[in-house]
Amino acid sequence: MSINKNEIPYKIYLTEEELPKQWYNVRADMKIKPAPLLNPGTGQPMTAEELEAVFCKELVKQELDEDTPYIDIPQEIQDFYKMYRPSPLVRAYCLEKKLGTPAKIYYKFEGNNTSGSHKLNSAIAQAYYAKEQGLKGVTTETGAGQWGTALSMASAYLGLDCKVYMVKVSYEQKPFRREVMRTYGASVTPSPSETTNVGREILAKFPGTTGSLGCAISEAVEDAVTHEGYRYVLGSVLNQVLLHQSVIGLETKAAMDKYGIKPDVIIGCAGGGSNLGGLISPFMGEKLRGEADYQIIAVEPASCPSFTRGTYAYDFCDTGHVCPLAKMYTLGSEFIPSPNHAGGLRFHGMSSTLSELYHQGLMEARAVEQTSVFEAVQEFARVEGILPAPESGHAIKVAMDEAKKCIETGEEKTILFGLTGTGYFDMYAYGTYNDGTMSDYIPTDEELAASIANLPKVK
Amino acid sequence: MSINKNEIPYKIYLTEEELPKQWYNVRADMKIKPAPLLNPGTGQPMTAEELEAVFCKELVKQELDEDTPYIDIPQEIQDFYKMYRPSPLVRAYCLEKKLGTPAKIYYKFEGNNTSGSHKLNSAIAQAYYAKEQGLKGVTTETGAGQWGTALSMASAYLGLDCKVYMVKVSYEQKPFRREVMRTYGASVTPSPSETTNVGREILAKFPGTTGSLGCAISEAVEDAVTHEGYRYVLGSVLNQVLLHQSVIGLETKAAMDKYGIKPDVIIGCAGGGSNLGGLISPFMGEKLRGEADYQIIAVEPASCPSFTRGTYAYDFCDTGHVCPLAKMYTLGSEFIPSPNHAGGLRFHGMSSTLSELYHQGLMEARAVEQTSVFEAVQEFARVEGILPAPESGHAIKVAMDEAKKCIETGEEKTILFGLTGTGYFDMYAYGTYNDGTMSDYIPTDEELAASIANLPKVK
Repeated sequence: MSINKNEIPYKIYLTEEELPKQWYNVRADMKIKPAPLLNPGTGQPMTAEELEAVFCKELVKQELDEDTPYIDIPQEIQDFYKMYRPSPLVRAYCLEKKLGTPAKIYYKFEGNNTSGSHKLNSAIAQAYYAKEQGLKGVTTETGAGQWGTALSMASAYLGLDCKVYMVKVSYEQKPFRREVMRTYGASVTPSPSETTNVGREILAKFPGTTGSLGCAISEAVEDAVTHEGYRYVLGSVLNQVLLHQSVIGLETKAAMDKYGIKPDVIIGCAGGGSNLGGLISPFMGEKLRGEADYQIIAVEPASCPSFTRGTYAYDFCDTGHVCPLAKMYTLGSEFIPSPNHAGGLRFHGMSSTLSELYHQGLMEARAVEQTSVFEAVQEFARVEGILPAPESGHAIKVAMDEAKKCIETGEEKTILFGLTGTGYFDMYAYGTYNDGTMSDYIPTDEELAASIANLPKVK
Repeated sequence: MSINKNEIPYKIYLTEEELPKQWYNVRADMKIKPAPLLNPGTGQPMTAEELEAVFCKELVKQELDEDTPYIDIPQEIQDFYKMYRPSPLVRAYCLEKKLGTPAKIYYKFEGNNTSGSHKLNSAIAQAYYAKEQGLKGVTTETGAGQWGTALSMASAYLGLDCKVYMVKVSYEQKPFRREVMRTYGASVTPSPSETTNVGREILAKFPGTTGSLGCAISEAVEDAVTHEGYRYVLGSVLNQVLLHQSVIGLETKAAMDKYGIKPDVIIGCAGGGSNLGGLISPFMGEKLRGEADYQIIAVEPASCPSFTRGTYAYDFCDTGHVCPLAKMYTLGSEFIPSPNHAGGLRFHGMSSTLSELYHQGLMEARAVEQTSVFEAVQEFARVEGILPAPESGHAIKVAMDEAKKCIETGEEKTILFGLTGTGYFDMYAYGTYNDGTMSDYIPTDEELAASIANLPKVK
């Protein structure tokens, strides 16, 4: 007798004809828009011209567009998407059975591509617009390594040069990530490095630092603005990234609609917000337009708790303070998570769009400790057959918690979560968990107060 | 304008209803059957009773069944298959465009599961029958690591204990493979080890050996037969494995039939034969029954060339000579490939079924050097977005060679190859290629003559 007793398959794949042809821009449906990026010198909103010194022209247009709800996906990007999309929407029959829950659990699995995550959705878009603009190459940062890999792949496909600054702790824990990027022709530098002014300054100020996304961003931006024909691209936080990542939510919603499924709870991990923002976009759109209601939960690591313990204020996106100011939930741009933190989700801030939605009470947030994440992940891996990235594990942990609550209440909730990627390059972290040497770290109130003390003054 | 100008999508996925419900046993259509396994003591065909000391009862039945063409896939295995199957049949539009070939290239991609390869197809079947028999656990060997990972996953899912002997060179080059297996609850021992009699003997005879599949098999078999409630399982070579792996070919054929596609050339890499045997089974069946003709090419590493330079004779499957004799193309059971050989496909012998088909001229074989394999693989990865396992790279190399020939001849051949898995745990090898330090090794005629000199005498 099959576990699958009803008509919903284990995996729902849209056909290629059913794939989204437009991205959805959730800002268009927000009555109160996300606060604009500010020029740290003048305190005024960044103009398109100012942003174009750092970012590609078309991406700046997308970054500033808060009115157009749907934006066409260029055909070449649609073609690239077909190499690894649609991603499956999976019904977690085996997990439900293992937990003995009446809940119905679904996850959108974005790990079946070589970058190992959803990052490729925005990487190909950003590389495409760089190529269209006639640029030589792009620079970026990477933390856990998925974004750098994704950008390497997209750049190789389009024949662009790609320079990646990789957070030092990840560079050391994940030597093989570097080889994947090199196989795709990218150059990879551990950050902070001696190759940039900002890197040298950070090294002088914090010798022995294991790096942070904030540092690596500063270095990548400096590299781009000091080299002719290069622009900087970013894998999270920005509005344009959430726009591209809306393909996750659009596919999910189309697949659910096809089978008449409506989620009660939607859960995603949140570092800078790219996956969560992408997954929830069309659902949040319905919520903003008053057409439907959903419980939406952002899950972050207890060691880097920007939503749950941060401040909603203007702050720098980077440690070196070369970037514009963004209004967001932040722990302070000098915050660097403990090196014992294994997963990604290491960014001190959060997408301005998600920050504003959270501020308006349209979504909630939870912080979870990494040993509890790995415990959930191991249980999940053994029944669902997927070895998740630690980042994704944060969403899995809370989805399993919610499903367990349904055992007590008897509710047959439909739970949807984003499984952003695979953990094949995270086996160092898995090893510490397997060895029983993994520990948790929660910053003290004093530490957070210190890191938030120097927020920039905004007129 | 889309690259995809016709109606064949980038990826063909069967629906869950279209998945095979029976495996196909190619031996049933062979007029001359593969030679039976022999008892090395008596020289007589192994009886079911003798085999059941090592293997599970139901698997022995499958091993010896050369008459039943279709064997039902138990529902629980079908359910497990749905967690990661159907695998996509991919049309390589981007590779075709890059090469400028009039050929139409398809590949069956088996890498989208955590074991990273097709190995899971047989692992779940073998673990299932072990569980049904009421066993405590299973033992096995693993070379590149895919099979060990697959068996760990299947064992974790069913609650079986799993002991893996991993070829030492892979154990050292792929530390993270071990962590994946441990995450799935398996114990992993580098082979040869001090934990078995045969391991100690091999270490005494060849101190400093980097191991071979043949050694690891001997250790795993000894472990199984000396522990109550354990049986040995094998990821390749055996008839039962080819039977389970027929799911690859059956899905491929169903997907091709659905779109009216008929391959001219079918290409697979060959180590012990599990992937190649599985992929070609239903096509070979048509060929054996005179219903269709296909050019079928086995691709092996030049450093371990059993088809192209081996002898068709009875030989031991393992270095320690604890296993039955199999008639196969072999390099001699003491042959150990050079440690500079990066990929898997390290077995000294070959499936008896494939050996007999090759001997009858129903398929051909080519040997390729590893640097040329990695060159092809890098080109493939950059346009198709998949980072292949080095093993799979052997098939890619020859598929690309065949597609390039079509440029010269103008033929619009349809080329099908098996892309068995991903290379995420092979980045050490990729690193040597990226660094330009990878070298090739081809055994000399003298070396091969020495390793084949001690074939067992069969009456």
